[in-house]
Amino acid sequence: MKQQIRILGIDDAPFTFNEKYSTVIGVVMRGGEYLESVLHSQVAIDGTEATAICTEMINQTRHRKQLKVAMLDGVCLGGFNVVDIKEVYEATALPMMTITRDKPDFEDIKHALKTHFRDWETRWKIIRQGTLHKIPTSYNPIYIKYVGLSLSEAKELINISTIRGVIPEPVRVAHLIASGITRGESYGKA
Amino acid sequence: MKQQIRILGIDDAPFTFNEKYSTVIGVVMRGGEYLESVLHSQVAIDGTEATAICTEMINQTRHRKQLKVAMLDGVCLGGFNVVDIKEVYEATALPMMTITRDKPDFEDIKHALKTHFRDWETRWKIIRQGTLHKIPTSYNPIYIKYVGLSLSEAKELINISTIRGVIPEPVRVAHLIASGITRGESYGKA
Repeated sequence: MKQQIRILGIDDAPFTFNEKYSTVIGVVMRGGEYLESVLHSQVAIDGTEATAICTEMINQTRHRKQLKVAMLDGVCLGGFNVVDIKEVYEATALPMMTITRDKPDFEDIKHALKTHFRDWETRWKIIRQGTLHKIPTSYNPIYIKYVGLSLSEAKELINISTIRGVIPEPVRVAHLIASGITRGESYGKA
Repeated sequence: MKQQIRILGIDDAPFTFNEKYSTVIGVVMRGGEYLESVLHSQVAIDGTEATAICTEMINQTRHRKQLKVAMLDGVCLGGFNVVDIKEVYEATALPMMTITRDKPDFEDIKHALKTHFRDWETRWKIIRQGTLHKIPTSYNPIYIKYVGLSLSEAKELINISTIRGVIPEPVRVAHLIASGITRGESYGKA
């Protein structure tokens, strides 16, 4: 796999529950080092269109042909606006990964969904689909799901695109931009 | 000079003349490779507070102590909202540089200022102050002004922070973010 492989990283901006929308930032990077493009969209907080927004972002960027994979910071954008990576993959033919620093607490998530959403079963089904893989790193492990890739390809993509710490640069940089433009200065970790 | 030196790059977003404000993005990078933070502000288009906005951005970031220089994409943010880099340097003690890809056409600028601004002489004086240096690169030359540095330090900072093409990464990345969040997808060159 080439070191200069094009990766799209996607993350949402922090929001308060007074807000209706959350900013979504996409970044196109070559491997983990060179930022090529910044994409911008938004999703309704706790809405249901995050899958469509990701599909649109991928299919509409002029970098589409160069992209080899998209990496999402977790499986939701804008609260519990769940991204169905299988559906995005089917609509775009672009392999997809979700990456999280912490192991999701599925019982907590299920409880929150049941409490707040009439359509909780639909969201829950998307969140639970696919296999969660624990990937060891030199620091703490990260947790990933993927579609359109083999496990060894997923691991290689993480290796190529991680510079410091454990989070691949496209996800880390999308997070810095999304939090920076919302809060005035970027804070926290992807 | 260390390769990992912290540089703040500042650029504004493209705007239409229906808008009153332009987004200003600051990025803190280590050398030309690693994005550490994204800062966000705004200036009035054709306003007079760009110097104050830059001063505030520098003095308020939690990365202030690590910063060694700030690089601006040209001398204006938000149309003809002129940045007095000498004044920013005096208020922050941070060395400042302006960088442009094209040699400014000072006669054109003077004409535009005279046509549109009653305070054109104030703006003109700031734009003209300092010496414009033509810096050769392996591609086209770039044009810089600086304060708080020697010419050889300015050249070294450009060398350290330029990866591809002629524009240092902190300015290039600030430009990509500013144009990406405004237009939906980043376009054009810093």
